[in-house]
Amino acid sequence: MPDAEGHPDRGEMELGKVLAALADPLRRSVVRELAAAPDGTARTCSSFALPVSKATVTHHFRVLREAGLVRQVDRGNSRMATLRRSDIEQRFPGLLALLAAEPTA
Amino acid sequence: MPDAEGHPDRGEMELGKVLAALADPLRRSVVRELAAAPDGTARTCSSFALPVSKATVTHHFRVLREAGLVRQVDRGNSRMATLRRSDIEQRFPGLLALLAAEPTA
Repeated sequence: MPDAEGHPDRGEMELGKVLAALADPLRRSVVRELAAAPDGTARTCSSFALPVSKATVTHHFRVLREAGLVRQVDRGNSRMATLRRSDIEQRFPGLLALLAAEPTA
Repeated sequence: MPDAEGHPDRGEMELGKVLAALADPLRRSVVRELAAAPDGTARTCSSFALPVSKATVTHHFRVLREAGLVRQVDRGNSRMATLRRSDIEQRFPGLLALLAAEPTA
């Protein structure tokens, strides 16, 4: 069962939810940036400078969190997001490479 | 530019549209079945026995076609669907393997 924050366990991560989460270009950009950063990198939602309202940013991160792609934790006054890299790689091998290789034209 | 039937060229295939198409379990099952069959296998839409109305089947195949995942051609009185396997593999390496390996639990 997902925890109180909506994070599914690795074994609960569903490909359909993951693909739906990644169908959105802004959500894909968040995952791609985190995947390109050193493992364990933690960033605030606002650090991604998504060109949408704060409520929409919150929505996008909820979708990513509930799909199992990112983990969000509170640190002091900030809410930080990390990529669930090893969970993603073990559950859906090749997915992060597919995103990293997205054609630009 | 996509052709009159809505088939994009390989270079026009977009990851966002492909992921959105594959977020649906029925569409994913169509691609998975075609990918597991010998290359070039052509099937009618009805042969997949999707548990939805004919109009919905038509909709699902349009989404797959417009994403570039399947090609639909008329043969005699039948409309046949084939997987655009080499286009998919070249544009999005690893995608078909990811679908084939979808966890069942």
